[in-house]
Amino acid sequence: MDVKDYMETLGRQARAASRAMAKASTAAKNAALLAMAADIRARQAELLAANAEDVAEARANGLEPAMLDRLTLTAKGVESMAQGLEQVATLPDPIGEITDMKYRPTGIQVGKMRVPLGVVGIIYEARPNVTADAAALCLKSGNASILRGGKEAIRCNQAIAVSVRKGLAAAGLPETAVQVVETTDRAAVGHLVAMPEFVDVIVPRGGKGLIERISKEARVPVIKHLDGNCHVYIDASADAEKALKILENAKTQRLGTCNTAESLLVARPVAAALLPQLAAMLIAKGVEIRGCVETQALVPQAKAATEEDYYTEYLAAIISCKVVADVDEAIAHINQYSSAHTETIVTEDYTRAMRFLREVDSSSVMVNASTRFADGFEYGLGAEIGISTDKFHARGPVGLEGLTSQKWIVFGNGEVRG
Amino acid sequence: MDVKDYMETLGRQARAASRAMAKASTAAKNAALLAMAADIRARQAELLAANAEDVAEARANGLEPAMLDRLTLTAKGVESMAQGLEQVATLPDPIGEITDMKYRPTGIQVGKMRVPLGVVGIIYEARPNVTADAAALCLKSGNASILRGGKEAIRCNQAIAVSVRKGLAAAGLPETAVQVVETTDRAAVGHLVAMPEFVDVIVPRGGKGLIERISKEARVPVIKHLDGNCHVYIDASADAEKALKILENAKTQRLGTCNTAESLLVARPVAAALLPQLAAMLIAKGVEIRGCVETQALVPQAKAATEEDYYTEYLAAIISCKVVADVDEAIAHINQYSSAHTETIVTEDYTRAMRFLREVDSSSVMVNASTRFADGFEYGLGAEIGISTDKFHARGPVGLEGLTSQKWIVFGNGEVRG
Repeated sequence: MDVKDYMETLGRQARAASRAMAKASTAAKNAALLAMAADIRARQAELLAANAEDVAEARANGLEPAMLDRLTLTAKGVESMAQGLEQVATLPDPIGEITDMKYRPTGIQVGKMRVPLGVVGIIYEARPNVTADAAALCLKSGNASILRGGKEAIRCNQAIAVSVRKGLAAAGLPETAVQVVETTDRAAVGHLVAMPEFVDVIVPRGGKGLIERISKEARVPVIKHLDGNCHVYIDASADAEKALKILENAKTQRLGTCNTAESLLVARPVAAALLPQLAAMLIAKGVEIRGCVETQALVPQAKAATEEDYYTEYLAAIISCKVVADVDEAIAHINQYSSAHTETIVTEDYTRAMRFLREVDSSSVMVNASTRFADGFEYGLGAEIGISTDKFHARGPVGLEGLTSQKWIVFGNGEVRG
Repeated sequence: MDVKDYMETLGRQARAASRAMAKASTAAKNAALLAMAADIRARQAELLAANAEDVAEARANGLEPAMLDRLTLTAKGVESMAQGLEQVATLPDPIGEITDMKYRPTGIQVGKMRVPLGVVGIIYEARPNVTADAAALCLKSGNASILRGGKEAIRCNQAIAVSVRKGLAAAGLPETAVQVVETTDRAAVGHLVAMPEFVDVIVPRGGKGLIERISKEARVPVIKHLDGNCHVYIDASADAEKALKILENAKTQRLGTCNTAESLLVARPVAAALLPQLAAMLIAKGVEIRGCVETQALVPQAKAATEEDYYTEYLAAIISCKVVADVDEAIAHINQYSSAHTETIVTEDYTRAMRFLREVDSSSVMVNASTRFADGFEYGLGAEIGISTDKFHARGPVGLEGLTSQKWIVFGNGEVRG
């Protein structure tokens, strides 16, 4: 097989299918999702058998345990895949929404209609559940999609693709509206991200390495999610109880998520009063503290932080810590060292809270809340395609809307321009 | 001078200035704009003298008349530049706008705040008025900017830059918030579009050649405006008078604008009745018709259209014409041949109007209105950075909002994630 020809064929088919998807009714899209869910449930044994073969091969090839774990599908996993499809069916259809229709002095009425982006390419690692999830989100948002999963999951992904195609056909939608790439040749990814004539946007779902590689090669826009070096700033007017509770949740609820706090800033006026108890809580939870000289003076167990520490997303039981003069230094520090994902201030001071909200240049900025809330579901989006660390198009948690655009529409009655 | 070093210095300065601009008050931004306008008026003689030198050199170098015309600044041009700055000062400030704050079941209140993109690079041709215009739009939207105009206008652009810097300083804003590139070395453009660490978006303003070149080289997002191959579709239920009026305006009001109609589609049931009079109007206005076989049968003066004609943005007194079966064929034809800029249907039929609006995949889709309305000012945006023919980020006429993004903000009261 010529991989380039193959990918171009998928691209051409997706472009054609995207026309049908753009005008597909909400009922047809939901019917497809429900039919997919039913078929996935009915074919549970088949899916598990395909996955077992994938897992056996991956194990023989020495895939590391954490990845094997993500690759493995259980009966419960199949059920949750089906439920995920059903949940997307319950979400409001973003497509066709008309907003802001306003009369202009010329007599025309101008506003916007929400439309799909067209063709979405999803590139992900060896997690079979992403196949169903990504297919559902692209379908509901009226896009055609091309899905490229990790090669270790190829048999299971192809088995899921059968259900997806059956669901589309049952609803009278083109089967090429969702295409799962059948080749494991790595060159397929390079072609997928370099066909602007056929693909409108790429959404990589996976580790930083994958995303960086794709961003570099892509010739179409990429909705990308890089680091989450999130900060908790304890202001001079912080409520001590809230500070303790928020820091504990932000740092220790889960160590490996992108919205976990990686750095603690404490205002000098309250450092002596608060830092020891904050540190005691962290140390009791097994978190290593790497701090500035002032931190070390107040917290004997703290190691010295290097410049590099302040730039680091640990994804581990480590936190960097710095005593800062005031909210100005906190904002400046964050805008310099943060990855612009999520930051929170703990304060009872109105003016400093509002300044922090306005001046911190991150995708989520919070007052008196845990950074762990930065999440599409917690924000009420109902679904999450990813979290964008870019500013262009979409920023922060991205729901179905991130896969759409708005065109202008005009209602006239024979008006012409003067 | 090392051009790369020079551009990186501008980039670094712009990135630093963007922090101050993001938090600049509306009052300060407006004060800067008004001070620039006053200074430009006060320095009219200086600006005209600088421009006269540019024009003399360009003439000696054999610049073509149309470009010489655009390069030439008059006293009236200086005044309209000043007025343009004052008008941007009257526009609402998009930055800091908080919307959609909703309580979530967890107790946090989540919504969005509008923020600048950061640093905007503007690349344009030898039109000195763009320098003031682009500086104003970037400033009002809270961005730092780097402006690179055509080399023929270098003296006048530098003279305008003096007023811009004075205006910024008078308002207490960093003078590096707007930087006009001082070198005419073409390599500067290549560097400007390839510094993602310093520049967040590029807006090219100029001909298709410029935009295509920049899009190819850019390593940051580009808000780009390519062809305007716009269609007027006369439906079987069209009101004849509206059809005539709209076609006349769309095709003949101005021949060289991007929202001018370049192709006419007529539904077969009304072709015999309407096409001859539509054609007579066009021919009377000196427009050449290139049509399909049916068009030629009804309009003896029509030449034969080639496949290529239907893809062409003439920007001239020529129109392509095709008789189509119905709204389905019209939509399919447009989605195939159009550049996805602007299309209009003339019809009294509700269902076909709504289908056209939904199914035509262009940045502006209209019912019973002239395509000439596709314009930021006509749409009420108050300003226009450009017209985007992309779907990602911004589509169609782009106002100040196109230079902004939205971050998520959270008001909490000590909430943590469960």
